[in-house]
Amino acid sequence: MARTRSEERKAEIVRAALEVIAERGYRGASLGAVAERVGLTQQGLLHYFPTKEALLVAVLEERDRWDTSGARDRERWRLDLMESLVEYNAMRPGIVQTFSALLGESVTEDHPARAFFTERYAQVRENMADVLRAEFGDELPGGLTPERAAPLLTAVMDGLQYQWLLDPDAVDMPAAFRDFVRLLRPEER
Amino acid sequence: MARTRSEERKAEIVRAALEVIAERGYRGASLGAVAERVGLTQQGLLHYFPTKEALLVAVLEERDRWDTSGARDRERWRLDLMESLVEYNAMRPGIVQTFSALLGESVTEDHPARAFFTERYAQVRENMADVLRAEFGDELPGGLTPERAAPLLTAVMDGLQYQWLLDPDAVDMPAAFRDFVRLLRPEER
Repeated sequence: MARTRSEERKAEIVRAALEVIAERGYRGASLGAVAERVGLTQQGLLHYFPTKEALLVAVLEERDRWDTSGARDRERWRLDLMESLVEYNAMRPGIVQTFSALLGESVTEDHPARAFFTERYAQVRENMADVLRAEFGDELPGGLTPERAAPLLTAVMDGLQYQWLLDPDAVDMPAAFRDFVRLLRPEER
Repeated sequence: MARTRSEERKAEIVRAALEVIAERGYRGASLGAVAERVGLTQQGLLHYFPTKEALLVAVLEERDRWDTSGARDRERWRLDLMESLVEYNAMRPGIVQTFSALLGESVTEDHPARAFFTERYAQVRENMADVLRAEFGDELPGGLTPERAAPLLTAVMDGLQYQWLLDPDAVDMPAAFRDFVRLLRPEER
């Protein structure tokens, strides 16, 4: 299906917003800076996204295209695909930076992305538990269940992103993630 | 040693800054908001901290008092003390929120806390490797070395903080951290 001119323009604005948020965070981002980057006036941009929050919603939906680990069609996910996702992420620091900055901000008061991240993490933990159960069964090393290992898997992905963004030469993010998966593999106990 | 009146005032300003950063992030924080909270004019506050960045440095030094896992006197650290630290953190969401917000922001462009976090994580990873070696020896589960497990231990602490801040009822942060330590324990393989 061909995208209309208006859809293309919106996609271009969302890409510009991703860049501006990576640079300044959401609170530091201005609609004026996004508009300038796509050669629009601020009034012109408001035609596509009437508020800064509407633009944030579009950015968060873009996150779902980028990383579908929170998706409801859980069948699509397996641990080896997650390892591939982390490898892919290591080739696009810009987008990882945008969402790491947004996650960090989301814990501040009344942040408009807070509900999004809260719901998303509940969904991601559920999906991770399903993935772990399908792969390793009910009993994981250390007496853990898939449900208890799921928040750890999620935490490792997020925490490694910060260490890697701060110091990409010191942290091999995909290798470290594979190391963690190895810790969860029952046969390697 | 008794604190002088001026030192007390500075400590009070740092506490107010911790609160304002927890609410708005560093970029969203204004010196005016901090001054108001301690009953000073902005001019009055500048007498104690001449710039916003000087105040941030004091806040980051406060972090070091709060969590000495990056400290250079490594002997002080053991895994059970880290478990206690995570338990203690679960009782003070405010300060965890401040530093989680700062970590998130630190990956944006030219952030004044970036160098601090980069150096700190290098130090923390070194210390964690020492702690793991002292506790478990050179060979950890999954064929990992203490050096390869150190960034994972660090990532789990940070990542769990975000999940817990977003949804404290869904995530038992201290229990999850203890679960991760259990995964690293060779005798439980």
